[in-house]
Amino acid sequence: VEAIIASAQMLDRATLAAETARLLAVLRAQRPLVQAVTNFVSMDVAANALLAIGASPAMVHAPEEAEDFGAIASALVVNIGTLSQEWVVGMEAAAAVAGRLGRPWVLDPVGVGATRYRDETTRRLLLKKPTIVRGNASEIIAAARVAGLHGEAAAPKGVDSAHEVNAARSPAMALARHQKCVVAATGAIDLVTDGVRVVELANGSPLMSKVTALGCALSAIVAAFAALTPDALLASAAAIGVYGVAGEMAAEAASRPGGFRVAFLDALDVVGEADIVKRLKAR
Amino acid sequence: VEAIIASAQMLDRATLAAETARLLAVLRAQRPLVQAVTNFVSMDVAANALLAIGASPAMVHAPEEAEDFGAIASALVVNIGTLSQEWVVGMEAAAAVAGRLGRPWVLDPVGVGATRYRDETTRRLLLKKPTIVRGNASEIIAAARVAGLHGEAAAPKGVDSAHEVNAARSPAMALARHQKCVVAATGAIDLVTDGVRVVELANGSPLMSKVTALGCALSAIVAAFAALTPDALLASAAAIGVYGVAGEMAAEAASRPGGFRVAFLDALDVVGEADIVKRLKAR
Amino acid sequence: VEAIIASAQMLDRATLAAETARLLAVLRAQRPLVQAVTNFVSMDVAANALLAIGASPAMVHAPEEAEDFGAIASALVVNIGTLSQEWVVGMEAAAAVAGRLGRPWVLDPVGVGATRYRDETTRRLLLKKPTIVRGNASEIIAAARVAGLHGEAAAPKGVDSAHEVNAARSPAMALARHQKCVVAATGAIDLVTDGVRVVELANGSPLMSKVTALGCALSAIVAAFAALTPDALLASAAAIGVYGVAGEMAAEAASRPGGFRVAFLDALDVVGEADIVKRLKAR
Repeated sequence: VEAIIASAQMLDRATLAAETARLLAVLRAQRPLVQAVTNFVSMDVAANALLAIGASPAMVHAPEEAEDFGAIASALVVNIGTLSQEWVVGMEAAAAVAGRLGRPWVLDPVGVGATRYRDETTRRLLLKKPTIVRGNASEIIAAARVAGLHGEAAAPKGVDSAHEVNAARSPAMALARHQKCVVAATGAIDLVTDGVRVVELANGSPLMSKVTALGCALSAIVAAFAALTPDALLASAAAIGVYGVAGEMAAEAASRPGGFRVAFLDALDVVGEADIVKRLKAR
Repeated sequence: VEAIIASAQMLDRATLAAETARLLAVLRAQRPLVQAVTNFVSMDVAANALLAIGASPAMVHAPEEAEDFGAIASALVVNIGTLSQEWVVGMEAAAAVAGRLGRPWVLDPVGVGATRYRDETTRRLLLKKPTIVRGNASEIIAAARVAGLHGEAAAPKGVDSAHEVNAARSPAMALARHQKCVVAATGAIDLVTDGVRVVELANGSPLMSKVTALGCALSAIVAAFAALTPDALLASAAAIGVYGVAGEMAAEAASRPGGFRVAFLDALDVVGEADIVKRLKAR
Repeated sequence: VEAIIASAQMLDRATLAAETARLLAVLRAQRPLVQAVTNFVSMDVAANALLAIGASPAMVHAPEEAEDFGAIASALVVNIGTLSQEWVVGMEAAAAVAGRLGRPWVLDPVGVGATRYRDETTRRLLLKKPTIVRGNASEIIAAARVAGLHGEAAAPKGVDSAHEVNAARSPAMALARHQKCVVAATGAIDLVTDGVRVVELANGSPLMSKVTALGCALSAIVAAFAALTPDALLASAAAIGVYGVAGEMAAEAASRPGGFRVAFLDALDVVGEADIVKRLKAR
């Protein structure tokens, strides 16, 4: 319990900003190789976001190469956005390899709660013990329900959230405790929890929801940060913090979704340690 | 017959502009959820175009979730651009659900006429009774032939049109009557018909054919408008009108294809009712 | 031997620049239809790059239509970036048709050396006799090894090269001789060889490796140039030269990856014969 309290104290705003800035520098020095089994919509922007921030992306989904590629990847993200039977096999194979090799992996349960197929796929993937689950509030609420936990019935609107992040607080904490993982519910306010500690972040821009797949790309960047430290709570909060700060910087450069996407990729490239220290909003 | 004439009269230029502006406002207020079973090339730009104009996109293609997702989607677009057997099963499943639930759906028969596989797939999908068929002139001519109607043999160049839209007028009208649907043949001039009425639109920019998948994204936006009104002719004309006006506005901001794509997404976000009323070219 | 020497002499810097400029004009006049069986990450940017430079892209991968589409396509590119069993069948079918019809085709063995599945797929595709093999240095080294040739063990980092292009010189030449094809290893310096002649090019920008799939898009453009001339060495060098010059021009307009991608597509549209003659760095 004392260790937990110490750790929680570590994540005050100033310390989190300093740790985030440090991890960003480590990321750019180490350039972690992130394997993504992700949806078709997000492939381009997730790969470009990983490159822009300084990681090395590889979209590799075939079960035939899960073993070999898992051996060289530093982290994995599994995203069920455009799901089909063949891909679920690849997702489970990649997750199994990551689990066996002790590599961190992130589950992004896109649209869980919208169809029974997504619920069932999420249930199967949760059994593979993701290091981190990241979704919008509706997805986190639905994922908790799928894991057999109490919680209000989720009614997402397709792949967009119908809930404020506060509604996801209790399901997120329950899911994190049940899975012994970190859960991140992102939105206007982002909530990251390991079931005991809760970090809230408040950077970003409404324009981020006007560009497709920026949530998916964030999950990939969370995986990149998870490659750098065994502290999955810190990794998640750091990734989300950098992403939100870059979003704010981009929103200062562009006010419409086409230009914002361009400016956001530029911001992921340019965002520096000083920007984090200055801008990070966390508690 | 009188109803038809009244309806045709409704679509004079001023009325069409007013109705288009009204529907655009409704779209932004309702934010319809559009399910897309679309090709890999268009996923990113179609989702971004739907978001930019104010709709909610979801790329969901698995037959396993056709039933559940069809129940929550407001409209569907099926696009055969990057076709394979597994996807055709998903297309047919999604179209069947839309038909059963009375949801509007748009067929974009990309490249029909180029291969027998595309012809056969288009034939099967036409049997599912799309609400609207949208393609370039060559595709509409080929679709009419595939439906067993007379018409000149189509010889498209891959997925680009080899025909002017005027060559598609008679096949488009025949196809619309045969299918009891609306057919839109788009190009420098756009032609929309329900087999009796014909609306021609003339907005847009040549730059639109220098960016991949803008036709596919248009089909998705036609689906979004079809979610707003049972008048599929009006929905199609309105979507095509807004799209063309946005294209013109973008061409005033950017003159090369890279910048144009960015400016076009911005224009879909910024285009307003007054722009429609001022700029729409229709007859 | 004399023919070879004459041909080699032909490719001095001034002649190569003149030939490249000529082929660029031919490309824009002929607008070759390039069939791409390519990875999901590159679909959007490869199609847009082909359109921007003046070619006509078609992403068609189903084995069911390999025969029909091969009959109308001018060239083919096969890219194994996001590989799976169903797609390998389509790749082999498309390559077989191109071979039978005498159409040029380009193999881009993305990530070969990283997994046994990529090695095995590359080995199978090499048996189909590509006209040109294009990859980064690590991929070319691995492809030579896969073909049974000597060479150092390749250790690529995912899909990014771990080698300088010079390390690929000997494997590239050996592979070209063994396959009787042209091999291009691209990077900061690009090396193109038919096993006897070697052309080196030195245009481009480091920003090109900060945008995903620009190597994949280059392979597609190499295919477009290969449609214009039976001289595959010239076609490869010309495509790579134009691409590098466009990259330089883009880097003068944008210094971050988001903006660079936009500027690069613009540059592919605007790059002219005079730019080539002035800027091409070759020996």
